[in-house]
Amino acid sequence: MGQAGRMHQRIDFLTLGVPDLDVARRFYVDGLGWQPLLDVPTEVLFFQVGHGLVLGLYTGLQADVGTGSLGDPALAPLSLSCNVDSPEEVVALVDRAAAAGGTVLKPAQRADFGGFHGYVADPFGFRWEVAHNPGWRVDPDGRVRLGPVE
Amino acid sequence: MGQAGRMHQRIDFLTLGVPDLDVARRFYVDGLGWQPLLDVPTEVLFFQVGHGLVLGLYTGLQADVGTGSLGDPALAPLSLSCNVDSPEEVVALVDRAAAAGGTVLKPAQRADFGGFHGYVADPFGFRWEVAHNPGWRVDPDGRVRLGPVE
Repeated sequence: MGQAGRMHQRIDFLTLGVPDLDVARRFYVDGLGWQPLLDVPTEVLFFQVGHGLVLGLYTGLQADVGTGSLGDPALAPLSLSCNVDSPEEVVALVDRAAAAGGTVLKPAQRADFGGFHGYVADPFGFRWEVAHNPGWRVDPDGRVRLGPVE
Repeated sequence: MGQAGRMHQRIDFLTLGVPDLDVARRFYVDGLGWQPLLDVPTEVLFFQVGHGLVLGLYTGLQADVGTGSLGDPALAPLSLSCNVDSPEEVVALVDRAAAAGGTVLKPAQRADFGGFHGYVADPFGFRWEVAHNPGWRVDPDGRVRLGPVE
C-alpha cells in the first residue's frame, strides 16, 4: 500500500490538554510574549512553534479523544498528531499502529473540526492522533495556514 | 536584552519519558517502521519528526528534570524543549518563564549531555527544557545533526 501503509515519521501538531485557557493565555501570551496563530476564547489557543508545527492548548482534549482514555491517569493530557492526505490514510495508519501494539482509543471517524481522525495510544499511553485536515496548509517557509474545512 | 529576553516561540525537541526502551523500539521501529536518528540501548531513542524537530524516548527523564518533579503525578512524563544559542540565554529564558508564572524545576546549569539547560513547568505542570546544545545543528533542509559536545 506504499505511503499509505507507513506511519508517517512526523509530528505536525502537539496538543496539551488544559483546564483553563485564561491561565494559558497569561503565561504564553502575556508572560512569554508569544503570538497566537488562533485564539478561540475558552476553547483553543494555537501557536506556530516550528516549520509546519503547531502547539495547541485545548480545553476539550479528553472529550475529543473519547471515552477510551477518560479517567485513566496513566494517559498524559496531551496528544501528538500527524496529518495525512486522506481519510483512507487515516484508517490505514490507525490499523498499522494497532497492529504494532498500540491501543485504539477512538476509531477513525469524522472529526468535530470537519476533517477525519482517530486516536491511538502507544504502549506507554502516549496518544497519537492520525488526522486528515483539508484546511491545513504549510507554506514553503514552513508557516501553517488554517483554512476553512468544508 | 532583545532576542535573549524573549522566550523563543519554538519547539526543537520533544521528550517522552518511558520505562522500557525495548518496548519503545518494538512499537516505533519494528511496528511503525521508523528510522532512529540515534539509538543508545536502554537509554534513549531519537527520531527526526519534522523540520529541525526531534522526538526522544528517554528512560532517564525524571532523573534529568531533577527532584522538583519527582513523584508529582500532575506532571506528565514529557518535556518540550527549545534550544537557544548560549548559556546566558538559557539563564535569561528560565528567568523570563519564572517571571511569567512558571515554576523552576531545575535551575539553569551544566547538563549531563555536555551543554547547559534548565527546566520550567508551565502553570499546568507541562515541563519546558531551555537548552543550549553546542552539538545540535539543523541543515538547510531541516535535518538535525547531532555532533559531539565538548
